[in-house]
Amino acid sequence: MSAPFRTVAIFGKPRAESVRERLRETLLAIADLVRGAGQAPLFDAITCEVAGIDAAGHTLAELGQRADVAVVLGGDGTMLGIARELAPYGVPLIGINFGRLGFITDIALDQIPTVLAAMLAGRYESDRRGLLDASVRRGAEQVFAACVLNDVVVARGVAGGMVEFSVRVDGVGIYNQRGDGIIVATPTGSTAYALSANGPILHPALPGLVLVPVAPQTLSNRPIALPDSAVVEIEVADVREAAAHFDMQTFSRLAPGDVVHVQRSAAVATLLHPVGYNYFATLRSKLHWNVMPAEGHDR
Amino acid sequence: MSAPFRTVAIFGKPRAESVRERLRETLLAIADLVRGAGQAPLFDAITCEVAGIDAAGHTLAELGQRADVAVVLGGDGTMLGIARELAPYGVPLIGINFGRLGFITDIALDQIPTVLAAMLAGRYESDRRGLLDASVRRGAEQVFAACVLNDVVVARGVAGGMVEFSVRVDGVGIYNQRGDGIIVATPTGSTAYALSANGPILHPALPGLVLVPVAPQTLSNRPIALPDSAVVEIEVADVREAAAHFDMQTFSRLAPGDVVHVQRSAAVATLLHPVGYNYFATLRSKLHWNVMPAEGHDR
Amino acid sequence: MSAPFRTVAIFGKPRAESVRERLRETLLAIADLVRGAGQAPLFDAITCEVAGIDAAGHTLAELGQRADVAVVLGGDGTMLGIARELAPYGVPLIGINFGRLGFITDIALDQIPTVLAAMLAGRYESDRRGLLDASVRRGAEQVFAACVLNDVVVARGVAGGMVEFSVRVDGVGIYNQRGDGIIVATPTGSTAYALSANGPILHPALPGLVLVPVAPQTLSNRPIALPDSAVVEIEVADVREAAAHFDMQTFSRLAPGDVVHVQRSAAVATLLHPVGYNYFATLRSKLHWNVMPAEGHDR
Amino acid sequence: MSAPFRTVAIFGKPRAESVRERLRETLLAIADLVRGAGQAPLFDAITCEVAGIDAAGHTLAELGQRADVAVVLGGDGTMLGIARELAPYGVPLIGINFGRLGFITDIALDQIPTVLAAMLAGRYESDRRGLLDASVRRGAEQVFAACVLNDVVVARGVAGGMVEFSVRVDGVGIYNQRGDGIIVATPTGSTAYALSANGPILHPALPGLVLVPVAPQTLSNRPIALPDSAVVEIEVADVREAAAHFDMQTFSRLAPGDVVHVQRSAAVATLLHPVGYNYFATLRSKLHWNVMPAEGHDR
Repeated sequence: MSAPFRTVAIFGKPRAESVRERLRETLLAIADLVRGAGQAPLFDAITCEVAGIDAAGHTLAELGQRADVAVVLGGDGTMLGIARELAPYGVPLIGINFGRLGFITDIALDQIPTVLAAMLAGRYESDRRGLLDASVRRGAEQVFAACVLNDVVVARGVAGGMVEFSVRVDGVGIYNQRGDGIIVATPTGSTAYALSANGPILHPALPGLVLVPVAPQTLSNRPIALPDSAVVEIEVADVREAAAHFDMQTFSRLAPGDVVHVQRSAAVATLLHPVGYNYFATLRSKLHWNVMPAEGHDR
Repeated sequence: MSAPFRTVAIFGKPRAESVRERLRETLLAIADLVRGAGQAPLFDAITCEVAGIDAAGHTLAELGQRADVAVVLGGDGTMLGIARELAPYGVPLIGINFGRLGFITDIALDQIPTVLAAMLAGRYESDRRGLLDASVRRGAEQVFAACVLNDVVVARGVAGGMVEFSVRVDGVGIYNQRGDGIIVATPTGSTAYALSANGPILHPALPGLVLVPVAPQTLSNRPIALPDSAVVEIEVADVREAAAHFDMQTFSRLAPGDVVHVQRSAAVATLLHPVGYNYFATLRSKLHWNVMPAEGHDR
Repeated sequence: MSAPFRTVAIFGKPRAESVRERLRETLLAIADLVRGAGQAPLFDAITCEVAGIDAAGHTLAELGQRADVAVVLGGDGTMLGIARELAPYGVPLIGINFGRLGFITDIALDQIPTVLAAMLAGRYESDRRGLLDASVRRGAEQVFAACVLNDVVVARGVAGGMVEFSVRVDGVGIYNQRGDGIIVATPTGSTAYALSANGPILHPALPGLVLVPVAPQTLSNRPIALPDSAVVEIEVADVREAAAHFDMQTFSRLAPGDVVHVQRSAAVATLLHPVGYNYFATLRSKLHWNVMPAEGHDR
Repeated sequence: MSAPFRTVAIFGKPRAESVRERLRETLLAIADLVRGAGQAPLFDAITCEVAGIDAAGHTLAELGQRADVAVVLGGDGTMLGIARELAPYGVPLIGINFGRLGFITDIALDQIPTVLAAMLAGRYESDRRGLLDASVRRGAEQVFAACVLNDVVVARGVAGGMVEFSVRVDGVGIYNQRGDGIIVATPTGSTAYALSANGPILHPALPGLVLVPVAPQTLSNRPIALPDSAVVEIEVADVREAAAHFDMQTFSRLAPGDVVHVQRSAAVATLLHPVGYNYFATLRSKLHWNVMPAEGHDR
């Protein structure tokens, strides 16, 4: 058990206009909880604006410097975004699920008075998640850069053709491929898009990343997991229309010869979970991983 | 709607001693239901013996010749066995689920008074399922023969090595393979073992069969669905220990050079379902096919 | 062996400007071969134009009505397109591979004097391939229609989100899905994009089609093969940007509520192959299907 | 570049009687090469016996203590066995491929005078491979123990039923499963049996292991890669006949309640490769990983 946090940043983002009022009330309840525990709540300025909260909002840089912990009310997408932005400041995050699935935001709304309170008082488990620094390089120029917590995806466009690319690891060519695209995923991202594309699950404590092809033309392709020290480069070759996706952000016009460059980031995101958190239980409940048929089909 | 059945064969098999009394009572209730509808129940002799029913039992040949329909109380394994044996006589079957999953035996115990009664009165949907004639040939000799409703499997033994075999279709070699084995499945069997080995689902109305390799050494292997006119031969080559499985029956000692020969059977099993039966709904409820995560993980 | 053909339509399409002259020469050589055998060559008008051939070109309708057989010089894409257009006229096709892979166009350029000559003289094997009639329906209106030999694909756009859709077969809902998309493929199309998306191979003689999800969010999804009598409807639900692809043609803006409707076409394409053609050999040589590692890794 | 080795252990094992003489000659040629470089060859006693070499053979313990490096002539199976046995002594290994595939034994016979000579002189790349300590526990008793370099497999027996088991990681239950079995593989083993069962490739530098189910009944199962600190326990539940395989060694009679216990070994095997060794090139050439179709099928 650690010491209670003293300063608590509060973030929230509504999925739709219809839940805005409920979001606002929940954010205010969290602030009350924080104050009641003798801690200082600090609202994010954008949150105040979108949720209609009449308080002094702070910039992300201010929150990064002043907060001991951040509470995020939203879906996994919101959580991913704020985790990426707070990572350079080393502020740990607690996710309250206000969205759809809540794979990362693992605390339910009705657990706020009990579980969140306990966590803010210092009773939690800490879970460090690696980030990737990614960029698009065109000749000598870097035309786009982003930090991702889930994945970098190089994908064909809407026109329907395949994208052709070559992959290098630590400067050595490993294969050429044609297909719908390729995913470079962190352990965190291994349960997102990469899993749909038949990639393996990587436990968050595994210091690695995984390359998962999407609908590869080659029948003998298989995903490969690499140590997280690997520097991955994907060079786009022949292409009618291709894009790169960095978590939620899209760079929509890759040109032949563009290189998508991916490597481990110096920053790390720290997620806090309630005591007793079980990663495997989350896999089972959220992804229906390994849920057995009622009583099994005979064979 | 068809005319009511006049003569009803009744079969049952307990999974365990502990449910024997409950099986007996249910079988007797079914006989009462049949008699109450002015129809004649005919008990299977083996059923009388295992369930402890004091009635004149009939041989399978007698039931095949005299019954208009058969009611089977048991799991899918029991149903498969009786369907195979009754197929040559053209007697349709109604399956009451007394077992675990009940993929084929799709009527629940509590539906006996309503759904079963309606079906015996002529309100049902008919579902024809193809069978395969399979045999093991050693030189000019046929050393084993069986009829299957699900699948024929050639598999390595317990010793842990791979089995190596070549596959011919209509006399033409299609590939050599090493691996845990290979499955030849009917549409009915495509949702059993073949599905675990990553085979596709074949709709029961598709006149085909599917070859599914099990843990093939070759990365580029893929299942292939063939027209049901195909004659499939699997010749075992190098092998430490291999077996062939025919639905539930095992031929445990394949020798190098043995050929497992599979082709469509002249016989067909007819399963009866309640009006409104939906094959796809069964896939969803019994196999969790396509059950979506609660509300979807973001990506 | 059949009677020799009397009238031979000739089609060709260059992949690139650089091979235009070679295409022209090959087309003229084919015409000479045809004339030398006492048969009448009829050039396609568009072929004359793109290849710079100074001859009286004919419209596709004229060729469909007058030709006994069509010789197509090009890649599989060219062959697919002409096969679709000639199917209503019942003209069989011979494919000469001038493109990349040549899965359907299975005659090599250097086989023209021997193999093509023999086929035009009546020595060939005939291979009937089913087509699908597909359309996009918006409310009561049909906004697009096409006939396909390979596949119909509903896919997400470049924006990177998932497409969500529901699938009905013969009017009955079978599942809802989120993912990159879904493929409805004929046996011919089962070795194209559907195979990359982990679909099974369907032998051309199997009267079926196959539904293959692309990167489905649901872990328990599996491809399903249906009888070719099935009427498949894919209704697009929530969608940021989605498109439908019909062989090579793209309908780029599906709107929520749009239904992509697919059913067996009355027309059939007939492909002619050299005597001794072996479908499985083509799988092995063109797709590296089941090519074994040099001598096998021990385990 | 390191200092030349001074003392070289020599091991060899023929695959078949027919190649015994060729094995003997090659072993003697290696010894000559070693002596010619001023180094001392030490023959393994069993090698002398099986190859018919008239020299003073040494026990494995002697070789472990006295040799600076071991040269192994054989297939991957031989290499795996000797690597396991030498690991506690820290003696690095050079594999000469005398077997079938040679995934680990990556030096060809004709490279002995050049490549092997260079390596013995100190020009090589070093590749550390983790081992697993595995055991079978029955109640409080340990009934079998082994060290593995590739994998531990719990598998059904020849009788054809499924094996049912539960898996714990670090004492926490992660899932129950029915199927053909489950594989726990090291990165080295990830390209052996686990790959056939659709597992991912794990780069040898990744400090992890992977759990791969074989033909799992549950459609939503996926392989999971874990950090190599994970302690994995597989408890066998209902079972007709099951076995555990440890690299090549089989424990053939698992009983219900038996626990197969797997954790990282303190020992590490060190493989030496020629300068310029490329792991990915080995994947491509030995497994046909990602070999593209001739020029791609259109889509």
